[in-house]
Amino acid sequence: MMRTLFSLIVFVCLTSFLRADEGMWLFENPPKQQVKEKYNFDLTDGFLDHLRLSSCRFARRGSASFVSSQGLIMTNHHVGARNLHELSTPENNLLENGFYAKTLADELPCKGLEVLVPVSAEDITEKVNAAVKPEMSAEEAQKARSGAIAAIEKEAADKTKLRYEVTTLYQGGAYHLYGYKIYNDIRLVFAPEETIAAFGGDPDNYEYPRYCVDCSLFRAYEDGKPAKIEHFLKWSTSGVKDNELVFVSGFPGKTDRAYTREHLEFQRDVYFPWRLQKLYRREVVYSAFANRSLENARRVGDDLGAVQNYRKRAIGQLQGLQTPSLWGEPKKIVEGSPEEIIKLACAEESNCYYAYDLLELGEAFNSKTFQIARTLVRLAYEIEKPNGERLKEYRDNNLESLKQTLFSDAPIYEDVEIIKLTDSLTMWREIPQTLLDISEVLDVDKNKSPKELATDWILNSKVRNVDERKRLAEGGIKAIEASQDPMIKLVLKVESAARFARENYEEAVEAPLTAAYAELAKKRFEKLGTSVYPDATFTLRLSYGAVKGYKDDDGTEIAPVTNIAGMFDRAEKQKHKEPFDPPKSWKDGKSKLNLNTSFNLVTTNDIIGGNSGSPMVNAKGEVVGLVFDGNIYSLSNNFVYTETQSRCVSVNTDVILESLRKIYKAERIVKELGF
Amino acid sequence: MMRTLFSLIVFVCLTSFLRADEGMWLFENPPKQQVKEKYNFDLTDGFLDHLRLSSCRFARRGSASFVSSQGLIMTNHHVGARNLHELSTPENNLLENGFYAKTLADELPCKGLEVLVPVSAEDITEKVNAAVKPEMSAEEAQKARSGAIAAIEKEAADKTKLRYEVTTLYQGGAYHLYGYKIYNDIRLVFAPEETIAAFGGDPDNYEYPRYCVDCSLFRAYEDGKPAKIEHFLKWSTSGVKDNELVFVSGFPGKTDRAYTREHLEFQRDVYFPWRLQKLYRREVVYSAFANRSLENARRVGDDLGAVQNYRKRAIGQLQGLQTPSLWGEPKKIVEGSPEEIIKLACAEESNCYYAYDLLELGEAFNSKTFQIARTLVRLAYEIEKPNGERLKEYRDNNLESLKQTLFSDAPIYEDVEIIKLTDSLTMWREIPQTLLDISEVLDVDKNKSPKELATDWILNSKVRNVDERKRLAEGGIKAIEASQDPMIKLVLKVESAARFARENYEEAVEAPLTAAYAELAKKRFEKLGTSVYPDATFTLRLSYGAVKGYKDDDGTEIAPVTNIAGMFDRAEKQKHKEPFDPPKSWKDGKSKLNLNTSFNLVTTNDIIGGNSGSPMVNAKGEVVGLVFDGNIYSLSNNFVYTETQSRCVSVNTDVILESLRKIYKAERIVKELGF
Repeated sequence: MMRTLFSLIVFVCLTSFLRADEGMWLFENPPKQQVKEKYNFDLTDGFLDHLRLSSCRFARRGSASFVSSQGLIMTNHHVGARNLHELSTPENNLLENGFYAKTLADELPCKGLEVLVPVSAEDITEKVNAAVKPEMSAEEAQKARSGAIAAIEKEAADKTKLRYEVTTLYQGGAYHLYGYKIYNDIRLVFAPEETIAAFGGDPDNYEYPRYCVDCSLFRAYEDGKPAKIEHFLKWSTSGVKDNELVFVSGFPGKTDRAYTREHLEFQRDVYFPWRLQKLYRREVVYSAFANRSLENARRVGDDLGAVQNYRKRAIGQLQGLQTPSLWGEPKKIVEGSPEEIIKLACAEESNCYYAYDLLELGEAFNSKTFQIARTLVRLAYEIEKPNGERLKEYRDNNLESLKQTLFSDAPIYEDVEIIKLTDSLTMWREIPQTLLDISEVLDVDKNKSPKELATDWILNSKVRNVDERKRLAEGGIKAIEASQDPMIKLVLKVESAARFARENYEEAVEAPLTAAYAELAKKRFEKLGTSVYPDATFTLRLSYGAVKGYKDDDGTEIAPVTNIAGMFDRAEKQKHKEPFDPPKSWKDGKSKLNLNTSFNLVTTNDIIGGNSGSPMVNAKGEVVGLVFDGNIYSLSNNFVYTETQSRCVSVNTDVILESLRKIYKAERIVKELGF
Repeated sequence: MMRTLFSLIVFVCLTSFLRADEGMWLFENPPKQQVKEKYNFDLTDGFLDHLRLSSCRFARRGSASFVSSQGLIMTNHHVGARNLHELSTPENNLLENGFYAKTLADELPCKGLEVLVPVSAEDITEKVNAAVKPEMSAEEAQKARSGAIAAIEKEAADKTKLRYEVTTLYQGGAYHLYGYKIYNDIRLVFAPEETIAAFGGDPDNYEYPRYCVDCSLFRAYEDGKPAKIEHFLKWSTSGVKDNELVFVSGFPGKTDRAYTREHLEFQRDVYFPWRLQKLYRREVVYSAFANRSLENARRVGDDLGAVQNYRKRAIGQLQGLQTPSLWGEPKKIVEGSPEEIIKLACAEESNCYYAYDLLELGEAFNSKTFQIARTLVRLAYEIEKPNGERLKEYRDNNLESLKQTLFSDAPIYEDVEIIKLTDSLTMWREIPQTLLDISEVLDVDKNKSPKELATDWILNSKVRNVDERKRLAEGGIKAIEASQDPMIKLVLKVESAARFARENYEEAVEAPLTAAYAELAKKRFEKLGTSVYPDATFTLRLSYGAVKGYKDDDGTEIAPVTNIAGMFDRAEKQKHKEPFDPPKSWKDGKSKLNLNTSFNLVTTNDIIGGNSGSPMVNAKGEVVGLVFDGNIYSLSNNFVYTETQSRCVSVNTDVILESLRKIYKAERIVKELGF
């Protein structure tokens, strides 16, 4: 049975440790006591440092780890899929065919891809809060904090070559400065065919039992040579046992476990319905396009997969929120309390969220072309301002990676861009006039249909050309204002409304929420200190847990580990119908495989999106798994963790090794992994 | 280029005939003059009577025709698909495997299926209008008309065995009484595999070139024997030529060509966005369910196919409505004019449509179980009232077919019912509280989640059992009120809100719209007489046109006729990926087929949904095609017909015959067809 939402806070107040395997712990405040009490295991600093320095963040997409001294990086196939997509051609679809570089020289450079290793962490809470004066309004305080954070990031960056990012923890209860070593020459080493990486596809996503080799290998290079890595994870040769203790080190993206009742009501009544409305239509539009031809399917494949994944997750979360029995009894809200401020901010958010989402987040102009043009326009204007006054994403510490993305020559398909933009403009036109009037923003174009507008803007924009992007970026405001590019002109037209929506959202919603949660967090700190973990923030976290099956809704006992035989069996039962048809390489190589080899496994680790690609290690610190999913019950992890049915789903390293050896004949890599 | 919306009326005012092949003409007022002037062909009464009496309506789903003296009926595979679905078992999926009855005795009875032949038509406009007194309000007038119509239908039915239905034409400008001969012992004779009937599936739906054998054959029985049919259509042996004159006789469902600007704005801003929102989510939810297993796919296949079809159609229509260049200049609305009344009614409709749709049309309770329980409850109460005061669908003339549907033992799948109901309840909960508060209607269940409610109601309801339905229907109000069935109780809880929503909708929207359009129609009549056709009303219509290709948006010339070779070529290019993989029977039989055999064809006929299954005949009255679709440009036919690109898509009878002979070895049927 799932716990009541929000019981978390009450629960941790009453006990000195968490009974469940709950928590996405900071490496700065690891759960030594909890692990000792529940598993009788000593989390030593040496163990933690090694695990931390072997972990890395894969672009802004997920987690990864070093698995050799020669810079070999392991992550999920779905985390690296965008690169496979970008490296594909009409002649060789790497998602379809997989990839293996027989020699170092065959490894394929991934343009614009960065891998970040978290090498330092510092608590700078006092420094940030020192900028806030008692007489400041919430808005002024927010601005003061932002200024202080920008200054601290800049100061730190000036000292070393690391990239520094300040992360707000405990809803403003603490601020930590993280330093990352950046690798930006990353090359593709190995990827299996998508049909085995994502065996079962969207239908089996978030389900269990599973059979996915959701794994890709990349390599970090420095000065054109494989990077020398001190901290990397060795692979286990002993497999996993029931109830065995395991750790996950990765970058969980975002949880909202401190949310108050009223904030969750906003999520249930506004945020998720709106998000799902967009996801449903996109899934249908992308599918319809994909189904017209195989080349269409390849072009839109990544977008479609992402949408399906988000959709399934959002449905799961909304179902949790729409379950009244999880809500417990409402409490009286004291006037002037943080809870009341949150309630009022959510009421405000219900009004201003749509404009923010459509204009500032660009959901009305769903296309890469718009986002590129937007970045070019803003770069020109923001770069002229002092660092602390810029929009966050244009501050000095973000500029390098922003430019790397901006000047990436990853292919952009006109036809995909047109269907995406047509649909999002259509959606905008469908929104009741009371919400937003499209013609107020785009008056000159009101005589064209969404399809006509989208076709015109996409086909006539030149910003899909990297040289043109560079020319505009170098030309600054002058070049932007002189540009006749329809997409640049569109961005300029939308700009004031978009910035207004952002400012309004930040001032009326974000600032009071931050302040109120900071106050709530402060109260919690006074009671609990660092014995609790902060909500996920896409910074490195440690989760502990055990290999453990569970009981399904209908009472079926689900064993924790699947094997290769099970995969072939599922394929057989589904008559090898896509996405249940393993690749030819596996069918041909079946007789060579040990069918008892472990395939996927479930554990009680507390994870969430962003953890994809995280290494799972045993008590010896050896890799036993590669996290790639949560089961359907884990979808409420965003709001509340429950150990009964919620499970983390990983690829067993055994199946990766078995297939590297017998299916892909990747001897070079098997050797590098230490076998 | 498409014509401006609404130019229709202006256009026909200025000319004595329609230049374009426009019109869904009444057989009572056939376009003799137009056909003579444009094609120099005499539409004789004999030609028309024979075509009309050979035509039939297939349940409430589409059109069909008699093609032998022994009761053989031809319609689309997709029109008869529900019966194939119902006759399927887990062991033999008729959609997958197709069906051919080798002997008469093998023909499979389709429970609950009716075929209607339109044998008489009478103009009763004066009788209906005689019931309206000058002092009556719009609402009273509407009631008086309804009473008169019920009385006329009853009187006619008492005289003969035919079923009578009064149809409102010209938005109330005229009323015609149609008499139908009913066949209700219908048996399945032949259906190809769905993979060739719907080759290209949803991706190629509304596209061209096409390659579908979208055809099924049924047989009407009387007294346990094949019905003796006097009027049936012979098949042509001469194929079709470019620009050849052809006629379509069928039941176009609904067009809205008389809609005023404000009414179309309602369609664009409220109706279609809301409809698409529902369709998008259903398509995603049904697809996700279907993709989990082959049996799931079979169970939900019909629902999914319908949703995809509606979705594609709605997107096309909305795209037309969102094209400002099609709208022309707005006109000033005179105070008190029909246009103003329509404008006000549409404003009202924008408010009350959601409640009407969710509660009265049952969209919040999307499941067969709810619809059955609703019918049982209403039947009990309505049957006690005088005929004229009943809800339309419970009047004597509708009771027989209502009961046939109600007591059909077609399978209903619990799991499909649960996912449908879960999703629609979830959707309801997502609707802003200002619109409708679920707890007002369902107060006692407010502690359960949509999934818990749906599972409870579906699993514990017994109305999926036909005997239980009969028991409740026989028990009347007493049995209904004593029932502990959760779905009956749900219907009763919703009933007052639902009826209120319906009454409100009928009074505030339908009645003023009917009155205003009647006035507009009256003005048109005064100018145009019967030289124009009325909007489609799912009654028999005649359309004329010619075999003609067209130019695609990107300039490609599309030839009007495809052939068998083209189908195999498309399959090859799509690597035989579903839905581009023809059935084994075709692949095995390829060498026997004449690859030049005509497959599908496009013509300029003015058709719309409901025309599916219509016979297409040449000037000799011989069948040359079987209408099954319109191309993408025809989707705006609902509002405006444009001859430039809008095309009717048919199966060439040549490919049906070729496959009956060489693929399906259906000698018995080939002979019966006269070959």
